[in-house]
Amino acid sequence: MSARPIIPDDRFGARLARVQGLLGERGLGALLIGVGADLRYLAGYVAMPLERLTMLVVPAHGGPTLVVPRLEAMAAARCPAVRSGQVAVVPWDETDDAHALVASLLNAGPGVPTTPSGRLLVSDRLWAMHVLGLQRALPGAAFGLAGDLLRALRMRKDPEEIGLLRLAAHAADRVVAQIAGGRLLGRTETDVSREVRERLLAEGHEMAEFAIVASGPNSASPHHDASDRVIRAGEPIVLDIGGSFDGYCSDTTRTLWVTGGDPALGPTPEFRALFTLLRDAQAEASSAVQPGVSCATIDAVARGIITAGGHGPDFFHRVGHGIGLETHEEPYLVEGNEQPLGEGMAFSVEPGIYLAGRYGARIEDIVVCGPDGPDVLNESSRDLWVVSG
Amino acid sequence: MSARPIIPDDRFGARLARVQGLLGERGLGALLIGVGADLRYLAGYVAMPLERLTMLVVPAHGGPTLVVPRLEAMAAARCPAVRSGQVAVVPWDETDDAHALVASLLNAGPGVPTTPSGRLLVSDRLWAMHVLGLQRALPGAAFGLAGDLLRALRMRKDPEEIGLLRLAAHAADRVVAQIAGGRLLGRTETDVSREVRERLLAEGHEMAEFAIVASGPNSASPHHDASDRVIRAGEPIVLDIGGSFDGYCSDTTRTLWVTGGDPALGPTPEFRALFTLLRDAQAEASSAVQPGVSCATIDAVARGIITAGGHGPDFFHRVGHGIGLETHEEPYLVEGNEQPLGEGMAFSVEPGIYLAGRYGARIEDIVVCGPDGPDVLNESSRDLWVVSG
Repeated sequence: MSARPIIPDDRFGARLARVQGLLGERGLGALLIGVGADLRYLAGYVAMPLERLTMLVVPAHGGPTLVVPRLEAMAAARCPAVRSGQVAVVPWDETDDAHALVASLLNAGPGVPTTPSGRLLVSDRLWAMHVLGLQRALPGAAFGLAGDLLRALRMRKDPEEIGLLRLAAHAADRVVAQIAGGRLLGRTETDVSREVRERLLAEGHEMAEFAIVASGPNSASPHHDASDRVIRAGEPIVLDIGGSFDGYCSDTTRTLWVTGGDPALGPTPEFRALFTLLRDAQAEASSAVQPGVSCATIDAVARGIITAGGHGPDFFHRVGHGIGLETHEEPYLVEGNEQPLGEGMAFSVEPGIYLAGRYGARIEDIVVCGPDGPDVLNESSRDLWVVSG
Repeated sequence: MSARPIIPDDRFGARLARVQGLLGERGLGALLIGVGADLRYLAGYVAMPLERLTMLVVPAHGGPTLVVPRLEAMAAARCPAVRSGQVAVVPWDETDDAHALVASLLNAGPGVPTTPSGRLLVSDRLWAMHVLGLQRALPGAAFGLAGDLLRALRMRKDPEEIGLLRLAAHAADRVVAQIAGGRLLGRTETDVSREVRERLLAEGHEMAEFAIVASGPNSASPHHDASDRVIRAGEPIVLDIGGSFDGYCSDTTRTLWVTGGDPALGPTPEFRALFTLLRDAQAEASSAVQPGVSCATIDAVARGIITAGGHGPDFFHRVGHGIGLETHEEPYLVEGNEQPLGEGMAFSVEPGIYLAGRYGARIEDIVVCGPDGPDVLNESSRDLWVVSG
């Protein structure tokens, strides 16, 4: 395994400085970042997703502050942005009003108006309890989403981020091979799904976020999870798995066909034809990746091939989503998104074809836009995995 | 292992009817429930926490609707509230405006004004992207939190819910015993933390949400996660672990002392004294549980004992939190919360004593308020686990 890249401490200071520059340029008041990927991106702080307010307050001018519950002050003090002196920690006690504390920090800061002209941007996934709490504590302020500002930064991955995405992808690839090479027949989807999660951890993920095991007719449901359906011979399985690896996400899909060792129960000619069409669409869409090409174009490439093959209506989701500290993030590869791809952007390319009540298939790789074309992170075979099971 | 309780399909219809009754009584417009515990509670739907809007719309009058992305329509159709005909599914396509769709459902419904007199309650953990999207799509509406209405229902667990919490607690107890009986010395906290997660899955959890391994001085940081610190002989470890088991959460803490097999490296007299004080406080607080006693009282019982022992300032967090479909939920056992305990309420009792820079200890059980007193779900020893490691 390659060495694990580390995001250096000074990177967080550089990101914060860039964000403050953007806030100033756009006349915005402050960023208010709750627990989650934005907080990890800006401060390197991995806080637990709990109800007590944790909030990184980044004003346009002046020093950023990390508001944390007292019992997490020691954990917060160890994060890169705090230990390197970029961010000050302000703890609050169990019976304090944390939203009022954030408001007081904003009102105290010079040059940080909380009127609509000093719009406040909250992290996209901040919980409603905190959004409404802040709106109550700052009745004069207008609120927007931090993603509108942060996406330009987060979309373009640093080399270390790409290194971590690659390690995550390879770990997920190994799990696919382990599952495909193991016993499947007679087991429930749920049982296989649990094995996937255990293997994702064993292969180095710290979290095993999802493990879709969609067998037989369930393979026609793109976001099927896993059920108590027992896997049988003579049917496909869509395996869509992922987790996080030092915070960076894996997400890969491969389609298997279980024969039970019986040659008569191999893939039907119709399924093979459908799969070949899908394989071509996925390969062509990936090959079309290069700087300057729009997100919508990648979607259109895959969709054009599948439509020409007569399955347009059976591919009823976008072709992909950005990936990084979140499984789904900008840029979204969807009709109408004219965002041009740029070097360092990372996203899935995952067309699917689904015949309701019968079966479906999907192939998904994580692709990074390189200077001249695609850098496909996943390395496992994109063919139909015909296995005994 | 006991049989796994199943929440019957008709329970969801009953919960929805009760919620609609409360909406009507209080003159509220509708509940708008995103992905998460509230959605699972009301509809039995376990949706993936992704950016596309999934929203259960429960008006005061008329039928509830589940708005879902098209690619999840098949998954949504299988959930108990939909398959039993209590809730209709309305799918949206990739380029639709899902917030506008929700607004149109509200405006179309008879008797569902979107003016402030018909306040809309969003789920407490709905993401800001959706809160602000709904506020934009429904400019005339006032918004509040669904928790204000749902907590009265969710706090009191049904027998099946208690059964699942008990299974989850026992599974976590087994993991504590496995970790305490295994090798610890010379391993990093992170490595042990990964083992905890794998074992939580192996013992039946579908998700291994957290695995705090806080060794030596890190044990003084209540929400320490796990670091690359190597575990040594002659120091304590606070192990605070949990995950979800058919959606219901486990959360237990035990304190270990690693001797490395050397009798000279056993617990110091000072640590033993501190731990005995903590043990008494935890036991007394648990014993004080019964219907009618306030949440604040349980906190005060533990705090009184620890304060009398001279460690009041070293116990700087509340004594516990409710638990169910979320690791932390109502009721919170904290100073100032006069909510009386009632039969079926489930919560943690987890005092801790932390000496910064030195060490700390915590003991945590999940306790259900029974008709006459506490029903303590965890069964592993609450003593200091002195292990060779």
